Amino acid sequence: MTTFMPMSARQIVERIAQRTTTVEAVVRACLERIAEREPTVGAWTWLNVDDALAEARRLDAAGVRGALAGVPLGVKDLIDTVQYPTAYGSSIYAGHRPAWDAACVARARAAGALVLGKTVTTEFATYCPGKTANPHDPRATPGGSSSGSAAAVADGMVPLAYGTQTAASVIRPAAYCGVVGFKPSFGRICRAGVKPLSESLDTIGVFARDVADAALFAGVLSGRAGRIPAAAGLPRIVLCRTPAAERAEPAALATLEAAAARLAQKGATVVEHDLPGVFEGLYAAQTEIMAVEAAEALSHEVACHATQLSTPLRQLIASAESVTPDRYVADQQLAQRCRAQFDTFLGDADVLMTLSALGEAPEGLAATGDPLCGRLWTLLGVPCLHLPFGVGPRGLPLGVQLVARHGEDERLLAAGEAVFGALCAR
Amino acid sequence: MTTFMPMSARQIVERIAQRTTTVEAVVRACLERIAEREPTVGAWTWLNVDDALAEARRLDAAGVRGALAGVPLGVKDLIDTVQYPTAYGSSIYAGHRPAWDAACVARARAAGALVLGKTVTTEFATYCPGKTANPHDPRATPGGSSSGSAAAVADGMVPLAYGTQTAASVIRPAAYCGVVGFKPSFGRICRAGVKPLSESLDTIGVFARDVADAALFAGVLSGRAGRIPAAAGLPRIVLCRTPAAERAEPAALATLEAAAARLAQKGATVVEHDLPGVFEGLYAAQTEIMAVEAAEALSHEVACHATQLSTPLRQLIASAESVTPDRYVADQQLAQRCRAQFDTFLGDADVLMTLSALGEAPEGLAATGDPLCGRLWTLLGVPCLHLPFGVGPRGLPLGVQLVARHGEDERLLAAGEAVFGALCAR
Repeated sequence: MTTFMPMSARQIVERIAQRTTTVEAVVRACLERIAEREPTVGAWTWLNVDDALAEARRLDAAGVRGALAGVPLGVKDLIDTVQYPTAYGSSIYAGHRPAWDAACVARARAAGALVLGKTVTTEFATYCPGKTANPHDPRATPGGSSSGSAAAVADGMVPLAYGTQTAASVIRPAAYCGVVGFKPSFGRICRAGVKPLSESLDTIGVFARDVADAALFAGVLSGRAGRIPAAAGLPRIVLCRTPAAERAEPAALATLEAAAARLAQKGATVVEHDLPGVFEGLYAAQTEIMAVEAAEALSHEVACHATQLSTPLRQLIASAESVTPDRYVADQQLAQRCRAQFDTFLGDADVLMTLSALGEAPEGLAATGDPLCGRLWTLLGVPCLHLPFGVGPRGLPLGVQLVARHGEDERLLAAGEAVFGALCAR
Repeated sequence: MTTFMPMSARQIVERIAQRTTTVEAVVRACLERIAEREPTVGAWTWLNVDDALAEARRLDAAGVRGALAGVPLGVKDLIDTVQYPTAYGSSIYAGHRPAWDAACVARARAAGALVLGKTVTTEFATYCPGKTANPHDPRATPGGSSSGSAAAVADGMVPLAYGTQTAASVIRPAAYCGVVGFKPSFGRICRAGVKPLSESLDTIGVFARDVADAALFAGVLSGRAGRIPAAAGLPRIVLCRTPAAERAEPAALATLEAAAARLAQKGATVVEHDLPGVFEGLYAAQTEIMAVEAAEALSHEVACHATQLSTPLRQLIASAESVTPDRYVADQQLAQRCRAQFDTFLGDADVLMTLSALGEAPEGLAATGDPLCGRLWTLLGVPCLHLPFGVGPRGLPLGVQLVARHGEDERLLAAGEAVFGALCAR
């Protein structure tokens, strides 16, 4: 990947407002980058140059205004759009034309953004990958399930893109592709028009190249301001390896430690704590809840299109059969208990810092990597932020994940901006 | 309404299994009733006789089996179906053909049921009514938003039908039409393929003519057995008037008291308690949460089809503007606190008994009545069951609502069957 540096979403909005650029010029810049890099990266499942330019000219002619005026977006193909087909990463729905935009798309368009195209998702946001490669190394996976969105933002094709996370589908591809990934608190962004996979876990998230852009985008989607509150210096941080650390690559652990050391050196309070033992059960609980709810949510596809489901997806659905209703309830109750404990566990800290993924993006495009580092936080419903930091032995991006209490998304973003600044500084 | 007594769902399943009837014969009986009564009741928004008979013959030819084998269903037109158009009660989506069956529809079909047709919903399950009249008095509302489903079951057109409840849209029409209405615990039945109105409130429910049929249907939809556990006699009941009683008609209160007296006389333990004072805030909280979330969920319709939204719906959406993000969070936190308190409040009781509606179905078809008696329980996410009992001064049905702890749906249904038996007995 070249060191291509396109405009941020904030710069686009500012220059459109100042009339120092046009939406058409912004879109042309994106399309040029895509024309050059898409054969290698494969981030897009639907993109029509003429449609994109026509939409850009329409916005220019209308004198577009709004918090996202003129910003081109990549929309994960799990999310319904009227303008472009939505296939959910499955041959079952090839060419499907939804009757309405998902609420999150309608909100961004109402704020002046335009949908540049649809980005690759794994099959129904589960395991079976699409065509996308890692922009840093086309032999490596971009991660999933929000593969195309993470790769498109990482490659400078588009400043912002949508993801969804049920296990680790925002944070992991953000980590593998080296971009900022933000999964808000559960319930923050309305999911109407997003193909459900697991109702108690699915969360809409965003990819951006810096924290302020992620905050701007998520702010629009959640009906909030999207400005990061000024942080009073570096945050108070709980460093937490979690049980996932036992399976992490040395480089991932070294990066976490290096980040902690650098932040402490710059004056952040960093204290290390292990999670309460009861939290270990959350990994299995998330896996079981996701299986049960996926088997429910995909009832129609199982009944009418079973032969078009991949083997891994059929295995996921079959695994639900071994989870009894009582077991499912016990899993949900465990999550509820741990949610209450997590607030206390954080004590006077602003955020927790932990692994985003087990290591660099694995080689090969047949799988999208292990979601282990996301399962726990998604089930807790807490906001998570991936910050790129450092590279691994194969030259691929690494980084750290910050996690905050449910509902403290703004506090997480403020901490994230301060941490990202400290980590990026030489 | 005549005293027409069609087969229960359980009888249909039994006779299909015994080969003493056919699905075609069952469907023909439904269609005959509909041909006679639909001009008066107006329960259906889509029903095609040839399609229904063809589907019945297909099931007969296949030797249909399953927990709902051969049972014709009315599907609220808020719920996606591949076979039939789904318009969500709005002219915006007239003739819309969804690409998949909602998960709840796929589950019932996999259990051998067939979709007889789509039933009338109010506009996006909000306030603006469809064409349905109350089967007991065509000048009176059937209630809403699940107007057609409640009316169709009440009129003997179909043994089972789907509803959804965001405020009181299952319990109220069940009460006005004089049928059993069951809203399970929040999260029990997967909502994939149901047009979202309010993500933290929307709950799929069912209409039936007795408690065992409601349990059978809800059991299939939630992936559970659907058999009511044997109740050890009459339940322990907390009689609770709630703040809604201040606005109730005398006949509704008298019916609640008469039910309590009859149950006590038959040996049930009935103790009267007022809700803790903090619960009063739930009425406003539910109203505000619903407004905020409806404005989000309908973002596309607001952006692209505003002129096709009714004035009441536009008012609902506009009312969201006065609810700040902090206020919304405070509302959700109040709900969370009250959920924890409700379990304690019930003490050693099995269920709470309260009003289902403020009185008989109001006259006039321009509105669907007041949802006050449902708001609190929907926000708490607890399971609710309406049982018809008695009539009011205008000869229209009345009844009582039973409520249980979250997740205790089977306990509620067991209590409901015992209570219904005691109330129906002479």
